[in-house]
Amino acid sequence: MSEFAGGTGDTDLEGELHVMGNLKIDADRLWGDLMETAAIGGTAKGGIRRLALSEEDRRVRDWFRTRCEALGCSVTVDGMGNMFAVRPGQDPELEPIAIGSHLDTQPTGGKFDGVLGVLAGLEILRTLEATEFRTRHPLVLVNWTNEEGARFSPAMLGSGVHAGKFDAAYAYGREDADGISVETALDAIGYRGGEPVGSMRFAAMFELHIEQGPILEDEERLIGIVEGVQGMRWFDVVVEGRESHAGSTPMETRRDALVVAADLIGRVTAIATAAGGKGTVGHLEVEPNSRNVVPGTVRMSVDLRHEDDAQLDAMTAALEQQIARLGEGPVSLSLTEIWRNPVVPFDADCVSAVAAAAEASGYPSRRLYSGAGHDAANVAAVAPTAMIFIPCREGLSHNEAESCTLEECAAGAQTLLDAVLIYDRRIEGAQPA
Amino acid sequence: MSEFAGGTGDTDLEGELHVMGNLKIDADRLWGDLMETAAIGGTAKGGIRRLALSEEDRRVRDWFRTRCEALGCSVTVDGMGNMFAVRPGQDPELEPIAIGSHLDTQPTGGKFDGVLGVLAGLEILRTLEATEFRTRHPLVLVNWTNEEGARFSPAMLGSGVHAGKFDAAYAYGREDADGISVETALDAIGYRGGEPVGSMRFAAMFELHIEQGPILEDEERLIGIVEGVQGMRWFDVVVEGRESHAGSTPMETRRDALVVAADLIGRVTAIATAAGGKGTVGHLEVEPNSRNVVPGTVRMSVDLRHEDDAQLDAMTAALEQQIARLGEGPVSLSLTEIWRNPVVPFDADCVSAVAAAAEASGYPSRRLYSGAGHDAANVAAVAPTAMIFIPCREGLSHNEAESCTLEECAAGAQTLLDAVLIYDRRIEGAQPA
Repeated sequence: MSEFAGGTGDTDLEGELHVMGNLKIDADRLWGDLMETAAIGGTAKGGIRRLALSEEDRRVRDWFRTRCEALGCSVTVDGMGNMFAVRPGQDPELEPIAIGSHLDTQPTGGKFDGVLGVLAGLEILRTLEATEFRTRHPLVLVNWTNEEGARFSPAMLGSGVHAGKFDAAYAYGREDADGISVETALDAIGYRGGEPVGSMRFAAMFELHIEQGPILEDEERLIGIVEGVQGMRWFDVVVEGRESHAGSTPMETRRDALVVAADLIGRVTAIATAAGGKGTVGHLEVEPNSRNVVPGTVRMSVDLRHEDDAQLDAMTAALEQQIARLGEGPVSLSLTEIWRNPVVPFDADCVSAVAAAAEASGYPSRRLYSGAGHDAANVAAVAPTAMIFIPCREGLSHNEAESCTLEECAAGAQTLLDAVLIYDRRIEGAQPA
Repeated sequence: MSEFAGGTGDTDLEGELHVMGNLKIDADRLWGDLMETAAIGGTAKGGIRRLALSEEDRRVRDWFRTRCEALGCSVTVDGMGNMFAVRPGQDPELEPIAIGSHLDTQPTGGKFDGVLGVLAGLEILRTLEATEFRTRHPLVLVNWTNEEGARFSPAMLGSGVHAGKFDAAYAYGREDADGISVETALDAIGYRGGEPVGSMRFAAMFELHIEQGPILEDEERLIGIVEGVQGMRWFDVVVEGRESHAGSTPMETRRDALVVAADLIGRVTAIATAAGGKGTVGHLEVEPNSRNVVPGTVRMSVDLRHEDDAQLDAMTAALEQQIARLGEGPVSLSLTEIWRNPVVPFDADCVSAVAAAAEASGYPSRRLYSGAGHDAANVAAVAPTAMIFIPCREGLSHNEAESCTLEECAAGAQTLLDAVLIYDRRIEGAQPA
């Protein structure tokens, strides 16, 4: 177990700043890596198509391995293809502090989602190597397999098996649209490694990522201190009315599934707004979906999120109540919860290290919760974890137009480095099990 | 021009009843024809697939021609494939009274939509032939080409060219999904006839059809006296918001196209209900339509109908106003009218003949407007016209489960016969032009 190394005199911010003063990441070098790897699977519109375990993924993995080994790191690969580049610390008895994210992208993904978290880690290793600075803990830079879930569902598969959330056999059996399994795809690109999945234990993990939302940009903050990941519940709703002729069915005898679905959409918005959470109907299908036919059936999704599981319970209850109320009319409704993820609070010490790091550089920052899932949310189950967000233009992500500035990427990488250094000095290392 | 032959003493209901007393259609014979022809293109689920100008359409046309000729009728076909079976009247100077509908169906159509109107006409010809009754006017039983518009768009094509609504060249050029034109398809089944389209002029036309709505069934009426066809306007609405992440976009900064579309759906319902008309959003597409993405774009249809064009103008204005109001928010909306059909009022004398016929048999009836388009709505532009509706189960139509009883079909056919007889005696014939 880890705890604050209180009263040693070197854990105050001034001492930390002294150490950190000499360690400045090279923004241009980081930007150069981002642009260089963006060409691996680069699209005409300036995005990246680098699906998990594809030939493009193999190429970026090879690039990553070569760069890490050039810095003197030993690179190991586990059975899920997760890659670990280890830089020794002063104390070989300590578990490593992990940094990293993922190098795979959406089919029409951007240049920053995931990639930034890995390449900022590489930049940190370079900075440490250039100044010959050695941390107390070893450091490990991680590239997690299939975070996006775009080729193989579900998302965050590599970190999920690492954290014991998914069984390895389940993960190996997942297939892409062409029926190719994860296992086959790992072998095809030569990235099924020999290390047992989950055998690499972390003293902590820090993940830098773009926000994928508009909050930081809207408030002109450079750094998001991520306190956790919102709880999330996914529902399927089926509204069953009666298909009938738009010309000959009087308004008062209709059983219009879409009119009721529309009413529900308004109620979902009201529930989320009242609770200070989020509620979204993102998917909706109408049957028969013909201009002159009163809709007989609507199938729709409801996505509810909140930073507090009790509030999420209350939102769920309110949704059930509205569904029951609407079902008293001439149309029937069914509600099925298909998935839920509880709130994942990040580790207080890790979050505190991120906050201190942002403060040290004077970056305008705010605390927030992640609305999206991340590898860090899986890792949080097995190690103290936190995340750092930087803004991205208009919150746009999973899109070739995804955009961040060099300055934002640099601020994120610097905060990541400083958070690791602060944590490295503050925390008494855990002994290997 | 035609007018009531007032003061001749034989136009009162009693005199009409005397004539009609001997002329009773044979319900079983009619039902037999319905079931026999339902086998031509019959589906496993009890419906009919008999697309316009298909091989199945050729077979039912051949069947129809043979039956009509067996009754001594001369069958002619015009250039659009519209079929006319003429039974001479007492006065060869008079234009014929037309009865009929269409024998084509939807891809998964029912056994009654259109077919009933033609086969009830055939049953009427048989009844007249069996009793050797001769009307003053010639009668003409019509099978209109491509009423459904399922294979070739638009619908009501044959009657549309007949009435001068569509140009023949336009109609010939319409293509099905395989690129086969109407002209080619007519030739392929040997039903491009030699008669100039529109050359057959009518003293009047009566069309029997299933209601395709629930009003008659709900009110337990056997006969609908159709006073006209509702006016109809079709609009396309595009709602443009901003696609964003469902987890990381706060409710207050969203530009959710579906939330606004849902609001509009409620307003369309309110507009229609307040005006005593009909308003339907039957088609709606969400982009990107992904569970965890706030919808960026919604494309939807709006269908407005009313029996009064002035009310339809007011409904349109209200829709424009609501679109403008919603467009003041963070999402933009556009409204495009893509099609309109004005109200088609049927001929007062023809409607009166239908009402007298229903009363003569003591059938419970009500006056109503047709919500759907029909060949009669086209013919109304060139001849006095009315329609007769019978109930169908739950208003279901364009569906293999479309259903009517033998008694309902018989009541419709009897009313059709009696309306023709009443009109034949009441009206001074128009002279051919």
